Amino acid sequence: MDVIEPQVQPSAGGVTRVAVLGASGYAGGELVRLLASHPLLEVTFLGAKDSVGKRLAESHPHLASLPQASLELQPIDAEVIAGAADLVFSSLPNGASSAIVPALLDAGLRVIDLAGDFRLPAEAYPEWYGFTHPAPERLDKAVYGLPELFGARVAGAELIANPGCYPTPVILGIAPLLRAKLIEPAPVRVDGKTGLSGAGRSAAEASLFTSTEESVRPYRVPRHQHTPEMERGIDLATGRSVRVLFVPHLVPTVRGVVTTAYASLTEGVGTEALTACLRAAYDGRRFVRVLPAGGMVDSKRTRGTNVVELQAVADDRTGTAVVVGAVDNLVKGAAGQAIQNANLALGLDEATGLPTLAVYP
Amino acid sequence: MDVIEPQVQPSAGGVTRVAVLGASGYAGGELVRLLASHPLLEVTFLGAKDSVGKRLAESHPHLASLPQASLELQPIDAEVIAGAADLVFSSLPNGASSAIVPALLDAGLRVIDLAGDFRLPAEAYPEWYGFTHPAPERLDKAVYGLPELFGARVAGAELIANPGCYPTPVILGIAPLLRAKLIEPAPVRVDGKTGLSGAGRSAAEASLFTSTEESVRPYRVPRHQHTPEMERGIDLATGRSVRVLFVPHLVPTVRGVVTTAYASLTEGVGTEALTACLRAAYDGRRFVRVLPAGGMVDSKRTRGTNVVELQAVADDRTGTAVVVGAVDNLVKGAAGQAIQNANLALGLDEATGLPTLAVYP
Amino acid sequence: MDVIEPQVQPSAGGVTRVAVLGASGYAGGELVRLLASHPLLEVTFLGAKDSVGKRLAESHPHLASLPQASLELQPIDAEVIAGAADLVFSSLPNGASSAIVPALLDAGLRVIDLAGDFRLPAEAYPEWYGFTHPAPERLDKAVYGLPELFGARVAGAELIANPGCYPTPVILGIAPLLRAKLIEPAPVRVDGKTGLSGAGRSAAEASLFTSTEESVRPYRVPRHQHTPEMERGIDLATGRSVRVLFVPHLVPTVRGVVTTAYASLTEGVGTEALTACLRAAYDGRRFVRVLPAGGMVDSKRTRGTNVVELQAVADDRTGTAVVVGAVDNLVKGAAGQAIQNANLALGLDEATGLPTLAVYP
Amino acid sequence: MDVIEPQVQPSAGGVTRVAVLGASGYAGGELVRLLASHPLLEVTFLGAKDSVGKRLAESHPHLASLPQASLELQPIDAEVIAGAADLVFSSLPNGASSAIVPALLDAGLRVIDLAGDFRLPAEAYPEWYGFTHPAPERLDKAVYGLPELFGARVAGAELIANPGCYPTPVILGIAPLLRAKLIEPAPVRVDGKTGLSGAGRSAAEASLFTSTEESVRPYRVPRHQHTPEMERGIDLATGRSVRVLFVPHLVPTVRGVVTTAYASLTEGVGTEALTACLRAAYDGRRFVRVLPAGGMVDSKRTRGTNVVELQAVADDRTGTAVVVGAVDNLVKGAAGQAIQNANLALGLDEATGLPTLAVYP
Repeated sequence: MDVIEPQVQPSAGGVTRVAVLGASGYAGGELVRLLASHPLLEVTFLGAKDSVGKRLAESHPHLASLPQASLELQPIDAEVIAGAADLVFSSLPNGASSAIVPALLDAGLRVIDLAGDFRLPAEAYPEWYGFTHPAPERLDKAVYGLPELFGARVAGAELIANPGCYPTPVILGIAPLLRAKLIEPAPVRVDGKTGLSGAGRSAAEASLFTSTEESVRPYRVPRHQHTPEMERGIDLATGRSVRVLFVPHLVPTVRGVVTTAYASLTEGVGTEALTACLRAAYDGRRFVRVLPAGGMVDSKRTRGTNVVELQAVADDRTGTAVVVGAVDNLVKGAAGQAIQNANLALGLDEATGLPTLAVYP
Repeated sequence: MDVIEPQVQPSAGGVTRVAVLGASGYAGGELVRLLASHPLLEVTFLGAKDSVGKRLAESHPHLASLPQASLELQPIDAEVIAGAADLVFSSLPNGASSAIVPALLDAGLRVIDLAGDFRLPAEAYPEWYGFTHPAPERLDKAVYGLPELFGARVAGAELIANPGCYPTPVILGIAPLLRAKLIEPAPVRVDGKTGLSGAGRSAAEASLFTSTEESVRPYRVPRHQHTPEMERGIDLATGRSVRVLFVPHLVPTVRGVVTTAYASLTEGVGTEALTACLRAAYDGRRFVRVLPAGGMVDSKRTRGTNVVELQAVADDRTGTAVVVGAVDNLVKGAAGQAIQNANLALGLDEATGLPTLAVYP
Repeated sequence: MDVIEPQVQPSAGGVTRVAVLGASGYAGGELVRLLASHPLLEVTFLGAKDSVGKRLAESHPHLASLPQASLELQPIDAEVIAGAADLVFSSLPNGASSAIVPALLDAGLRVIDLAGDFRLPAEAYPEWYGFTHPAPERLDKAVYGLPELFGARVAGAELIANPGCYPTPVILGIAPLLRAKLIEPAPVRVDGKTGLSGAGRSAAEASLFTSTEESVRPYRVPRHQHTPEMERGIDLATGRSVRVLFVPHLVPTVRGVVTTAYASLTEGVGTEALTACLRAAYDGRRFVRVLPAGGMVDSKRTRGTNVVELQAVADDRTGTAVVVGAVDNLVKGAAGQAIQNANLALGLDEATGLPTLAVYP
Repeated sequence: MDVIEPQVQPSAGGVTRVAVLGASGYAGGELVRLLASHPLLEVTFLGAKDSVGKRLAESHPHLASLPQASLELQPIDAEVIAGAADLVFSSLPNGASSAIVPALLDAGLRVIDLAGDFRLPAEAYPEWYGFTHPAPERLDKAVYGLPELFGARVAGAELIANPGCYPTPVILGIAPLLRAKLIEPAPVRVDGKTGLSGAGRSAAEASLFTSTEESVRPYRVPRHQHTPEMERGIDLATGRSVRVLFVPHLVPTVRGVVTTAYASLTEGVGTEALTACLRAAYDGRRFVRVLPAGGMVDSKRTRGTNVVELQAVADDRTGTAVVVGAVDNLVKGAAGQAIQNANLALGLDEATGLPTLAVYP
């Protein structure tokens, strides 16, 4: 498979100054939390759209003990950011990111974008995101930053499109099996379950505790914007084109995404072959945990960590490969993976500063 | 489709005395709770295996205000039960039920069995339930009690196999579409999500609050015992045989089952045709709520009620019909449906005594 | 004690038409849900402030199976309401209620107000509710509707101030003990725990699932508006004046209020005397469940019901009576108690149409 | 006040080998998780009572990525432990700890005991813990390890009694106010709320998800074993004796303890004086966060961290000081505080290896 091993280069030795845009949101807060443990990245700028003027500790009281607690959230101005930082994590909303990223790149900043704005070809945006892409000429330069599959491309990249929470476990689970021809290039149905932090920090009735406890709800069926991203990620990794149907569900957790993908099993393939393939694909990768048959993926074990749990089971009765994946949507599904990408882009060990031990129970 | 309308006969006017076996479990408690509002069924006997001698209010303190609160749980003896009751709801565990049901029938009792013991052909039990059926000669006499599809067969039946919680929404959603040829008789993949009451009342580490909050976990993949029941129910209703793959997941709710079935869409069929078919199939049925495209099934809205919510969406990109269903696993998925079956067996209006309004939020 | 037994008069036989104002909120929805089971009250008018024009089933999809599902929410106009209904349940917000109630009374309607607007003397409103009462002359006519203590006053009343969720278990627990001199008239400290439905249906960040799961938070310390209501209710029931300190906490449940009151124990009084006093006070009252020492109050057992659980324990080490109470804040703490008051006002059995069996687990 | 500042001595430079007893429990797992980030303590022995022979990763799958993942849990033998480790964290159950600690001490090991076995005078054990203390002669040597109050005594101690989860925030909140005479030495009523991890990992019906969701339950009223510990800790810190009444409640969270203490306010004292006193007492202490009036303590912000949040509010209406505290019961309330004590005992910076940033939301 097209798994390109990153060439880890020794760090220049110095600390890289980083800006976090969208700092008042959940992904922004998680970036700041995780970066606090990073020995070589230092948050020097916090940018926001709606919370300008607030201090970090007002916006995120759980970060009150940080040195940056009294840092004020600033308006987003590329030149100002370029004076304060070398690398930008943008966790601005979909659509807002692509409006500012070109200026950041032109100002010489390296950008890791957590929105969906640089993950797809330009023609996909009107249909799946509802906007016309404002900077289509930049899309070719963006590297899709799923480090376990595309790590070598990430090394040195100037613009990294950080994957979505749902696509991360799906692509990591499906790509090796398809590449190894253990599954057929037929449509894959993906059933997703997510916690409420995926819906963001904005107050909406559907996200209230009262609406969510004791509730399981499918949403945006069948037009969730992560659908084409899954298709493209699988294509990039395998050179084979498959259609994906994606049906996400809200479940009453805060963090955690579990994806259960149903793919067409190649005749004669069993669970052991699927498991062995995944193990071989991610041998030595510290953030991938492949469970044996009989194990039980559990999103709770990934909470607060950059770990993805994967498991594949063959069902010969229906000719199906069941490929289950779990991540913390705010870490491996967002902020943690972004830092992993930053590590690779800067030539550091990809695991620098990233947690693997869940706060459990 | 083979939807047989029940012939409602006027009740004999009197009250039917009922026994609840397995009264200390969750389904047993729910039977007693629901029967308290039933004008024509009266609980006169409570049977148990492990809690013999306890009073109802000790076993279920939330039922302390009932007239039966001080009724003692009795050992299960067919003759004694026959002296105290006319109809038996058995919510004994799988395997325990088939050990006693023949004696109950022989004693002249009508039996509604909530276990899986009379839902399948004899040869399926060793493989899917892990035991050899002790009374295979009774299996032919058992009616599979999914009232919206087999109501007429239920009327007057002596032994009713009450459907499982997961199969109920799956069969109700898939059968009409297959019958109408809107979906193909190809394998159906069913992704299930359940609350913890489905795991019963026994203490196990995996069911603790600490293990469950913030956790989504697939289990028994791909060998859950409801798999052949889904296949058989679809076959019974349509005369067409399809294979089912079933992958259940534990999510942190107490009640509620949501099933998301992925079936092969017949070419050219759209969401409107799917919706119209389900609407027509259940026109006038009080416990089925078919949601339009754009609606959002929500298990929370079924809580405490005998309602099933259904929704079907066509995805032409992948040729899939997504058929979502939600029930309260203890009501429409167990005790409520059992009472609905009892109503039909006794010639009453099927909705007698059964709630349709959820305690929401 | 001043427990006035209601004189139940035979109903006039007919059905009373009722209006529900604030029908789009949680208490409004709960009124409609509960009234659906009431044989002698019929909802004929739904009023709202912000959701005018919506149909009931749009506002409350869980009520879709009601005959009133397609009833439109109307603007609140006293004359129109008087043409459609005989009795009004107002679950408008604090402050909005007192702006309309005088007109409703003048139009000849009987009013049960679920807001705090008619529970206190006029001079308390600026301090505790932040507004000057617009109709102080009506306050004397309002009966404080805690039926187990003031049932006889409620019978026939034109304006009933329905108690708050927190004061209900506190007053019911403290009043009999104070009256019997088992506790001293010294300050009572009340520690409250509430679910999120008490915060209403409006979207606010503090009420999101993400903010609430794994969170216990005290709020409005020490100035919650239910403080003077507790003092006044105790005074009304006992003729003795005590000061109350009230410290409420948000806990991650949807429904349920538990109040733990710490009062000064009269010397020599033990747990048995406290328990016996509460039992005697509420002997025969169907909605009060007094737990023995060793029992464990559980808000979950009151969910969806009009039941209050009470328990009192003496601690001689510190001279404290611990008086615990639990209610479902939307039922006994709001809509259910309002219907209980309506029953009494109309001369019906107070329990008519009200549930006592929780949907458990 | 008797706050004794620890004299931080430079570490000997080497790594201290530590044993964790009770490694299969929640506190044991949390010790191992936290120690993984500690630069100077290394887990070299895992002991257990019931899970002997299991590997760490079997017992705690969330720790699968640790170097110690395949370490086997060993029987508890003092000599063997002395050969493998220099310092012991014992998270054995109450009663089991005191049976082994003397042998550990005699073998030259330094012991930090997380049970309640060395926190009280011998005569308290029969009444509050239900057993006669097997090693009363060791009780005098045990230092009560609440580092923010008794840090200097901890430095160099051989046997440290690690405080209970509830007493930690209570003593930290009450002691400075009593010492400063802002509150009177009258009985203090403490209302506690805890998550289910406090009930441990053993399966019991009361701890099931089904029993806990939507449930608030007081328990062990008024005889919880943390009562005398609160009294003793306050006495140790202030030289003044006060009686405590403690009423704990189970709330549906996994982690988090919130204690709300009601003390007698000295006349004339206001909220600002209370806040200033707490701020002065803990000035410069990295794990104590004193909230201003108007703030809102939130247990969720302490999750996974060694932080305690404190807030004090004066209510002159009732002469009460309301002192609220919150901790993560498994960290500052157990494993984190134990490591803080180990740091002090070994002459390290007390904060070494301990987290202050919550995984939020």
